[in-house]
Amino acid sequence: MSDCIFCKIVEGSLPSTKVYEDDRVVAFHDIQPAAPIHILIIPKKHFASLNEAGESDWEVIGQIHKAAQEIAKKLDVADSGYRVVTNCGSNAGQVVHHLHYHLLAGAKLAPLGVDN
Amino acid sequence: MSDCIFCKIVEGSLPSTKVYEDDRVVAFHDIQPAAPIHILIIPKKHFASLNEAGESDWEVIGQIHKAAQEIAKKLDVADSGYRVVTNCGSNAGQVVHHLHYHLLAGAKLAPLGVDN
Repeated sequence: MSDCIFCKIVEGSLPSTKVYEDDRVVAFHDIQPAAPIHILIIPKKHFASLNEAGESDWEVIGQIHKAAQEIAKKLDVADSGYRVVTNCGSNAGQVVHHLHYHLLAGAKLAPLGVDN
Repeated sequence: MSDCIFCKIVEGSLPSTKVYEDDRVVAFHDIQPAAPIHILIIPKKHFASLNEAGESDWEVIGQIHKAAQEIAKKLDVADSGYRVVTNCGSNAGQVVHHLHYHLLAGAKLAPLGVDN
């Protein structure tokens, strides 16, 4: 059994509010949203972060962005705008070590930058 | 002639400080960095944003993330951490309408969130 909470969400042993699923990708609402819309999009396959992605993983990362495009349309934020972010490691504030992309939308988002 | 400044960088008619280039992807330093390391990674093919990506574009988006992994190693921030971000549309603050991914690193980055 994996201790990874995102693997448990993929398996269904932890609940989530899914907004998208295909053969290799799942997306669900972040339980601690940082914006009016905050979705997490993950590969079903476990790997810790972009650092650990291998030759066979670039395709699913493309598929994650296709899912982001579809989710933005579905949640009606494609026109108002959205941000897609992955955090890798400590300086970026990565908390869960299963690759994930945040889709943030629904309000004017904070400018990019360092933690002041 | 395109008026797109990123297309001009791809063509070489505008200067840039490149850190990576392959057959379909170019990466260069942002001239207005929002962090100690701030790289822009773009497809050579012009399309405005993630909203305009089509079926043939998901592969190059995967390739952009492979480039991000390589650039983070090259600039020695793979272990300390980095963030990869694309902004789509007004709420996200997209300025240049040629798809681009920001790679931010070199300091503790701002938490994700809305513009307060």
